[in-house]
Amino acid sequence: MAKNFGAVRGLSRFEGFTDAVFAIALTLLIVEIKPPGAHDGPHGYDSLVHAMAEQWREHLALLLCYVTIGAYWLQHHYTGRIYARSDHVFGLINLLFLLVIVVVPYPIRVWCFHLGTAFEPAAAVTLTVALASTAIAWMMKWFYGMSGGRRVMDERLAPDFLKQMTRRYGIATAIQIVAVPVALASPRIGAGIALLTVAWFLIPQPSPRYRPGQEPGREEKEEA
Amino acid sequence: MAKNFGAVRGLSRFEGFTDAVFAIALTLLIVEIKPPGAHDGPHGYDSLVHAMAEQWREHLALLLCYVTIGAYWLQHHYTGRIYARSDHVFGLINLLFLLVIVVVPYPIRVWCFHLGTAFEPAAAVTLTVALASTAIAWMMKWFYGMSGGRRVMDERLAPDFLKQMTRRYGIATAIQIVAVPVALASPRIGAGIALLTVAWFLIPQPSPRYRPGQEPGREEKEEA
Amino acid sequence: MAKNFGAVRGLSRFEGFTDAVFAIALTLLIVEIKPPGAHDGPHGYDSLVHAMAEQWREHLALLLCYVTIGAYWLQHHYTGRIYARSDHVFGLINLLFLLVIVVVPYPIRVWCFHLGTAFEPAAAVTLTVALASTAIAWMMKWFYGMSGGRRVMDERLAPDFLKQMTRRYGIATAIQIVAVPVALASPRIGAGIALLTVAWFLIPQPSPRYRPGQEPGREEKEEA
Amino acid sequence: MAKNFGAVRGLSRFEGFTDAVFAIALTLLIVEIKPPGAHDGPHGYDSLVHAMAEQWREHLALLLCYVTIGAYWLQHHYTGRIYARSDHVFGLINLLFLLVIVVVPYPIRVWCFHLGTAFEPAAAVTLTVALASTAIAWMMKWFYGMSGGRRVMDERLAPDFLKQMTRRYGIATAIQIVAVPVALASPRIGAGIALLTVAWFLIPQPSPRYRPGQEPGREEKEEA
Repeated sequence: MAKNFGAVRGLSRFEGFTDAVFAIALTLLIVEIKPPGAHDGPHGYDSLVHAMAEQWREHLALLLCYVTIGAYWLQHHYTGRIYARSDHVFGLINLLFLLVIVVVPYPIRVWCFHLGTAFEPAAAVTLTVALASTAIAWMMKWFYGMSGGRRVMDERLAPDFLKQMTRRYGIATAIQIVAVPVALASPRIGAGIALLTVAWFLIPQPSPRYRPGQEPGREEKEEA
Repeated sequence: MAKNFGAVRGLSRFEGFTDAVFAIALTLLIVEIKPPGAHDGPHGYDSLVHAMAEQWREHLALLLCYVTIGAYWLQHHYTGRIYARSDHVFGLINLLFLLVIVVVPYPIRVWCFHLGTAFEPAAAVTLTVALASTAIAWMMKWFYGMSGGRRVMDERLAPDFLKQMTRRYGIATAIQIVAVPVALASPRIGAGIALLTVAWFLIPQPSPRYRPGQEPGREEKEEA
Repeated sequence: MAKNFGAVRGLSRFEGFTDAVFAIALTLLIVEIKPPGAHDGPHGYDSLVHAMAEQWREHLALLLCYVTIGAYWLQHHYTGRIYARSDHVFGLINLLFLLVIVVVPYPIRVWCFHLGTAFEPAAAVTLTVALASTAIAWMMKWFYGMSGGRRVMDERLAPDFLKQMTRRYGIATAIQIVAVPVALASPRIGAGIALLTVAWFLIPQPSPRYRPGQEPGREEKEEA
Repeated sequence: MAKNFGAVRGLSRFEGFTDAVFAIALTLLIVEIKPPGAHDGPHGYDSLVHAMAEQWREHLALLLCYVTIGAYWLQHHYTGRIYARSDHVFGLINLLFLLVIVVVPYPIRVWCFHLGTAFEPAAAVTLTVALASTAIAWMMKWFYGMSGGRRVMDERLAPDFLKQMTRRYGIATAIQIVAVPVALASPRIGAGIALLTVAWFLIPQPSPRYRPGQEPGREEKEEA
């Protein structure tokens, strides 16, 4: 029997709240980029194309933030078929995870704004620490959900499926933790490893597998 | 039998997330417009009306952004009766589509802020490329949903209805692609063509038609 | 039989999207107010309390925006028991209504920032025009929903209930339209009338009444 | 029989709207923190790490705002199992509660930005007044929901459970009110008491208890 902390609720409202944080985090990115010549008084730029190209650091930051947050949204949406309910501690860990998601544009921008400058080493360490923290928060949700007799996870899932997913998420997290010391030694390579691991989350995960005879019907899957 | 990538889920949460991105993209537009005299120290304006009228570029940008994003929301809401479920790749393409939606205020503002200046030609090309990209991302969702044995589309829809909608969306996309070279030759005409095509999305699309005997009941339609 | 434009859908997703726009419009207000001494370099203020009091125009603007948008949210939430479904044109009119909701902080701020200055007359007219426009957009939704054989309204509602609500909303709209010429003659009085009419929306509306024998059960009401 | 004001509706849409306001309030916090060297022209900072450390007031403010708003979200999510429906006055009180939630980053930032300066006493009083107001608005929702024959609360809940929760929320509110005069005498201690009381909301509350024979089934709990 699952042991829960605080009141148990279904996942629907919980997912809706989390989706809203993701949606806002993705959409807010654009407010940081101002069109050239819009709010800053006269510019001395020769051409508009040149002026927009000079904003390459901000465009790159927007793209990297979007890929990072978007990749985690895809995984969050996927695990909506794995988690089945929420309790208080799951909500607390989820808030911690969302804090990292909300904050991650800061280190990504710091890195983009100092690429190729004397501050790139410090920026790369900042970036890799932030991405490793995101992965660790994700793993905290995963382990909490799986432990305590599947506190908030679907009991019908096959143990070997959960073992496979633990391995997949665990390896990705380990690589992102290793990227921190790598970034200390070689900033560009450490940052590259961390970002590529995030991009790996864009690839589909295996479809959930269930204990024999407990496979949900198509109706339930399409309502989940 | 439909071939899906990754885990299949119903459309409800997927639509909720997408609706949230649209809602934020529409609402964020207002933060870019500051009331005259609010944050910028003393102004030398003669009258408040004059000062507000001098912001015409920002008011026009807000209106065009709102119409563009709003028109796509109407189409997205409409296709909620055509798509029936989501999988991983559909989520990925949708994130790409939402990236364009989130980013589109930038080129629209660039265009409005340089209308009638020496930079209008470059701004018009930027605008038409952005609008064509939005249309192409929309078509990617459409073709992915329809292919692979109707991966994520309602199987009950009549083939001739889908053919009709493919033609309608396809022609609109083609016009927006053609608007790019037109903008190179004649900036104002190219931008006008692209914007009018977006406005065409404000007009109702045909009601979904189903294979004989598979028409959903009124209850399902009103819950969809 | 109701005559609809475009595809008919239930109200759930439609309300969710509209709720999200309201939620963002209410929450965004705070980004306009910066704590004294936060981002603007050294201040010469003598005391923190004095510095915060000097921001009274911005605090007043936030409060008035919140009351205005909040009052319309209450009415929107209420009419979720009156409207029963959506079609394309209803979505289009709703987008127009939401545009006014999103934009209304601008005229409210303009008015607050110029209270007691030479620009108050122009600001008061701006404010009353904006509030009248919001009321008119609300009425457009109402009349569209009621016409065409109750296109998107619950058919079970008693005709005299709808008549009563049409009168209530209609009178409020008429007062807000009249406030515009009043503001031309007497800025403070015109603005006051318009704002008080909005505040009247904070008061509960009558509970929906149904045709005999068509009263929905408690379960439906609590799920609606 | 419960006495309601205005039209009664289920809690679903009401919670969705409230969740959206919480989600935005949590996510907006990041727009206040700009990466060093991003938008402010040349900096004279010696190292990037030093420059980021110099932003400690803003990082602290983000963390405190996130904990405060997050703790209230956890309680709001929890009470989704206690409240069962909404009426007009409940919506009005909820809007008041959300206003305080939306505004609370302002006093928190004021306090963080003046910690250790001559303005700390005034800032601490501002902070404690704001946190006490949040708690009072929360209690208003609670008492309204419980009164009038359980207007909007689940009738099946055991009276002793509600008595226990009233005591728990009541004591927390009383402590936060007491923190205001304490802050007048000793700014740091008053602010500390108020913030610790908010942090106490991060701890799980007791699971809802029901009248004998009225315990909802697991299905309902997981759908709630």
